[in-house]
Amino acid sequence: MSATPTRDTPVALTISPDGGIEGRSRRYEKFLGDMAGVYRDEDAWRASVAEHGADRLIYWVDDHRYQEGPGALIVGTSTLLPGRVGDEFAVTRGHLHAVPDRAELYHCLSGRGVMLLETVDGQSTAIELTAGRAVNVPGHCIHRSVNVGDEPFVTLFCYAADAGQDYGLIADAGGMKNLVVADGDGWTLAPNPDHSGYRQD
Amino acid sequence: MSATPTRDTPVALTISPDGGIEGRSRRYEKFLGDMAGVYRDEDAWRASVAEHGADRLIYWVDDHRYQEGPGALIVGTSTLLPGRVGDEFAVTRGHLHAVPDRAELYHCLSGRGVMLLETVDGQSTAIELTAGRAVNVPGHCIHRSVNVGDEPFVTLFCYAADAGQDYGLIADAGGMKNLVVADGDGWTLAPNPDHSGYRQD
Repeated sequence: MSATPTRDTPVALTISPDGGIEGRSRRYEKFLGDMAGVYRDEDAWRASVAEHGADRLIYWVDDHRYQEGPGALIVGTSTLLPGRVGDEFAVTRGHLHAVPDRAELYHCLSGRGVMLLETVDGQSTAIELTAGRAVNVPGHCIHRSVNVGDEPFVTLFCYAADAGQDYGLIADAGGMKNLVVADGDGWTLAPNPDHSGYRQD
Repeated sequence: MSATPTRDTPVALTISPDGGIEGRSRRYEKFLGDMAGVYRDEDAWRASVAEHGADRLIYWVDDHRYQEGPGALIVGTSTLLPGRVGDEFAVTRGHLHAVPDRAELYHCLSGRGVMLLETVDGQSTAIELTAGRAVNVPGHCIHRSVNVGDEPFVTLFCYAADAGQDYGLIADAGGMKNLVVADGDGWTLAPNPDHSGYRQD
């Protein structure tokens, strides 16, 4: 029997443009209190916690996965609420995949956001996403979602189940190289003066 | 330099709910004349070719890929036009991945279709898809799109760049185990009497 691969039973998923998946395997939520060290302006973050509470929802993720075979995919939605901490727009923590060559699709379902994309050798790019726009995030790309609009920024994502996430790389570098900050009614990239370069294994 | 992984430059993709990707790497089209042997009712297929011509478009695919690194993903849209050949609804050829454990996401953007899913050991399932519904097709699943509606059936797909496609498996088996056929105003599964079982390597 050991030669027989385990077979997953296909299930239907219903994906809402407002975020959320019927048929999901799990949901997790990130609150303002979880975001210590993520935003550069720590005073602004503390003031926001004081004003809104540590349990203010920042983003939530639904995903679907079968068993974690080598060829399996994780499919999900990320819903990042609008907001700012100081000049910085609301962000997800951001990550490089623990298996760094693993790519990831992000397809915007609603809202207006930016995918911030950086490489460990210092290239930095931002791609604006609105409903119907997508980015096939290449391997070796550190990536973070940023909500630059007034509505929830919802993306459908898909990546290899064996990819994993390295969150420490960004923290160890003093944050990402660029910040996505308010600029009039829009957004712009501003260099993060605390960024010390990414560890290159 | 050999230790430095090749880095792809991220590009924005604009995905239409009617099918098609701005920023795509390629487009390919399948015509009625390419579908010899795909539909069970060969007389009906020949009559359809005589009526509509071998160059009648059946489906088309846009996709985006970077270089084919081991962790790369291919993202695309499949647009399958409505129609019937005899009792059978319009289908794509269908395939198992050449690396059979590779999964694939199909997320319906518009239209009404069915994802027909079979395993080499004879399990067969059909999942109906309308806009917003999706299936994370597990590894080891032979899969085919079927348009059971009156409009183009458009899906966004995402799968590993190293997956490949084995189209011969279905042909060698005399077609898929089940056919998706008209049933009043709807559809049903009908056993394919020509199906001889899938080759199990």
